[in-house]
Amino acid sequence: MIKVGVLGAKGKMGSQTCLAVEDADGLELVARLDQGDDLAELTKAGAQVVVDFTRPEVVMGNLEWCIGHGVDAVVGTTGFDDERLATLRDQLGAQPASGVLIAANFSIGAVLMMRFAAQAAKYYESVEIIELHHPDKVDAPSGTARRTAELIAAARREAGAAPVPDATTTALDGARGAEVDGIRVHGVRLRGLVAHQEVLFGDAGETLTIRHDSMHRESFMAGVLLGVRRIVDTPGLTVGLEHFLDLD
Amino acid sequence: MIKVGVLGAKGKMGSQTCLAVEDADGLELVARLDQGDDLAELTKAGAQVVVDFTRPEVVMGNLEWCIGHGVDAVVGTTGFDDERLATLRDQLGAQPASGVLIAANFSIGAVLMMRFAAQAAKYYESVEIIELHHPDKVDAPSGTARRTAELIAAARREAGAAPVPDATTTALDGARGAEVDGIRVHGVRLRGLVAHQEVLFGDAGETLTIRHDSMHRESFMAGVLLGVRRIVDTPGLTVGLEHFLDLD
Amino acid sequence: MIKVGVLGAKGKMGSQTCLAVEDADGLELVARLDQGDDLAELTKAGAQVVVDFTRPEVVMGNLEWCIGHGVDAVVGTTGFDDERLATLRDQLGAQPASGVLIAANFSIGAVLMMRFAAQAAKYYESVEIIELHHPDKVDAPSGTARRTAELIAAARREAGAAPVPDATTTALDGARGAEVDGIRVHGVRLRGLVAHQEVLFGDAGETLTIRHDSMHRESFMAGVLLGVRRIVDTPGLTVGLEHFLDLD
Amino acid sequence: MIKVGVLGAKGKMGSQTCLAVEDADGLELVARLDQGDDLAELTKAGAQVVVDFTRPEVVMGNLEWCIGHGVDAVVGTTGFDDERLATLRDQLGAQPASGVLIAANFSIGAVLMMRFAAQAAKYYESVEIIELHHPDKVDAPSGTARRTAELIAAARREAGAAPVPDATTTALDGARGAEVDGIRVHGVRLRGLVAHQEVLFGDAGETLTIRHDSMHRESFMAGVLLGVRRIVDTPGLTVGLEHFLDLD
Repeated sequence: MIKVGVLGAKGKMGSQTCLAVEDADGLELVARLDQGDDLAELTKAGAQVVVDFTRPEVVMGNLEWCIGHGVDAVVGTTGFDDERLATLRDQLGAQPASGVLIAANFSIGAVLMMRFAAQAAKYYESVEIIELHHPDKVDAPSGTARRTAELIAAARREAGAAPVPDATTTALDGARGAEVDGIRVHGVRLRGLVAHQEVLFGDAGETLTIRHDSMHRESFMAGVLLGVRRIVDTPGLTVGLEHFLDLD
Repeated sequence: MIKVGVLGAKGKMGSQTCLAVEDADGLELVARLDQGDDLAELTKAGAQVVVDFTRPEVVMGNLEWCIGHGVDAVVGTTGFDDERLATLRDQLGAQPASGVLIAANFSIGAVLMMRFAAQAAKYYESVEIIELHHPDKVDAPSGTARRTAELIAAARREAGAAPVPDATTTALDGARGAEVDGIRVHGVRLRGLVAHQEVLFGDAGETLTIRHDSMHRESFMAGVLLGVRRIVDTPGLTVGLEHFLDLD
Repeated sequence: MIKVGVLGAKGKMGSQTCLAVEDADGLELVARLDQGDDLAELTKAGAQVVVDFTRPEVVMGNLEWCIGHGVDAVVGTTGFDDERLATLRDQLGAQPASGVLIAANFSIGAVLMMRFAAQAAKYYESVEIIELHHPDKVDAPSGTARRTAELIAAARREAGAAPVPDATTTALDGARGAEVDGIRVHGVRLRGLVAHQEVLFGDAGETLTIRHDSMHRESFMAGVLLGVRRIVDTPGLTVGLEHFLDLD
Repeated sequence: MIKVGVLGAKGKMGSQTCLAVEDADGLELVARLDQGDDLAELTKAGAQVVVDFTRPEVVMGNLEWCIGHGVDAVVGTTGFDDERLATLRDQLGAQPASGVLIAANFSIGAVLMMRFAAQAAKYYESVEIIELHHPDKVDAPSGTARRTAELIAAARREAGAAPVPDATTTALDGARGAEVDGIRVHGVRLRGLVAHQEVLFGDAGETLTIRHDSMHRESFMAGVLLGVRRIVDTPGLTVGLEHFLDLD
């Protein structure tokens, strides 16, 4: 039985995580902390792993405390840049038994989609990305779409692929989407949608499409639980849930 | 048996039309003309209807001849503006038994898609269009996508619909597509595709998608044959194949 | 302001209806009744229209009361056969100002899908239906899929269409789906889905696909509200929400 | 420059292969043989690799000759069972420099789809397969769909996954598709389609879809050419094009 504490337990992701941990085989929810609570309650409750869905302003302090107290951490809070990652590596270097997972996306489906897209990239002349979200989203394209484009572009570069063909000479502004690292990305906003993405590959006479549809934030919980179960045996810093998927 | 002549019989669409007329019940192919041939051969062969897939420079001369000789016409040649249509109406006014169909798109499926999109438009808060074509296409978005957007926009205006919601504040150039009459249109270019379009409607908790896939130019032949069969009983000028579909 | 009462107000659809009426312009929620409550509260509260999401055992009594007291009704309760409809017609015949709408499906999107499918049916050689639902659904295919198949089959019969082509000679049991009125219907059950349907039409070189995705029961509310607004001006019995859509 | 001969050069796949080899960088078409031609022409022409798209009755003789004469082979002819594969292994054992690739499917896209499906299988509670083909196909489900189902079933078994959930208690015959190794497979037949397949994975709140569309047999040529380029450096028997894809 792995004993789990949740930081940011009253937030949307945190409360969903509490429910998921309570339901999960082999895990026990021992602490729910939110703003103003004392981190010492984690050790009192015997937490071995912490799931952190808090805020960029407080997450580094939380992690320093966890690493210092031998509590592993699974982190969905955003705002990690190279400097922050370097700081964590330093702190973990001094505590070789501790582990921290930083994940921008806990959706196993999204991680699989990105992985498959990167693998398929070198076999197709053409590729474009369509991401589709609810109309209250403020940025376009989505972070997942940008990341997917970068992974595809890197795979094509490594394989020495020519640029994606496009004979367009006359176009309305924006008709061909945005360009991310040479890959065209289109952002659709539609009431009724949540978070969806399609990666389209094409070559002579055929196309391959990988589509991920995320309808509810409970879809992230399988990834969070996977992180919890794996981080207890994975010392050091892990960046990205994909390292915990077994895809030979 | 309706006797049919084809103008531009050696071109891609013209030669496909010849095959289709030969295979069709109730139609007889009596003349295949191309550049340099004498239109008088149409009357010699007894053609009642002409299908014209020629070029903008010659089509007006062809039609003047047809109207003057009592031959009905089904026209897929492009380049008709208001002035040309007015000229045809004048000529047809002097020959009340003659009929001419001008159609920008002979795909019955594309016509149905546009019709359904216009009908659905007033029932949904959100709508966007994705058109997908082979990468050798030079313009974006496609003419069909623009026309679909205009029909949807007109239906929304008539119903007094509010603008399509979009909270985007930070976007890469082009990420949200082109805007046609207030409707977002995205153009995808992919090797392996031919001509495809998706119209996406969304409202609270649901979406409705209408998609047309055109894989081969033979898909236009059902529309050409429908035009031939109906124009012989439809005097005057008809603009758009949709007038020949029975959609009560 | 139309005054609305809800019967079955504590049920899933009923409680959703209460929320929707409260939010709607021009409607006022004046009564929420459930099992054991006295229908007389409807007249006390001045209800002009009742929305009934109760059970087959009680709905006929509810409607007799409503018709007798001059309250119009929008009914989503199931279990209406020809006999029940005939009874309602008799009762309404004696109260010519009263109106009742019986609707099996309040999703405007599903109604549009069925309507478009029926309209497209005669233009395509092939057609099949795929319905996709969550894996807790006990029946297959869905009622909407059956109804869509019947509408398509009727349209094909009226147009004198040949049977849908199918050269299959060797098949595993069930591989070609179920047959409803000569139309093949496939039922997919998948965790993560709610209620979805795709109608696929095909002919030489092209396909037309109409897809409806229903992700949440709030998607039925636009149809319920449309029913409420229209039933006050529509005396007599109306069966099917499609009669309240303006699709010229 | 690799010198290539084609057996079955007048057939649909063989003639397409001839065109593809002629267009390919680094390959030279040196012999086109069909029924009645003498295999000795292959050695006369200096062929290093043979592509065989012939018939089950003659392919074993062709391969015995090739192995005996030091010509590598890429084989798309069907009808290989365990006995035939054992025979080839014996013959190749005596000629350790020779290589033979037997591939049931030369579509790189289909191979990627199967691979990705097998990788994703253990992460999802639900999975179903929809294959869609032209209505002249005589068997259902397709061989690719069966193979995909077997790969998914094997991956789920290895991961100790529970059976796919399905609460269906009332169903029309065939409504839930065919069962292949515990996986539901649905076969759609539609005019206008060629060869298409969708693998749908679902779990709480999300779905992942992998779709392959094959519109033309030229889509198999990239796989044939890959086979030719790799077999010259791959002695022994290789079964399945997937072994020549680099998917780390």
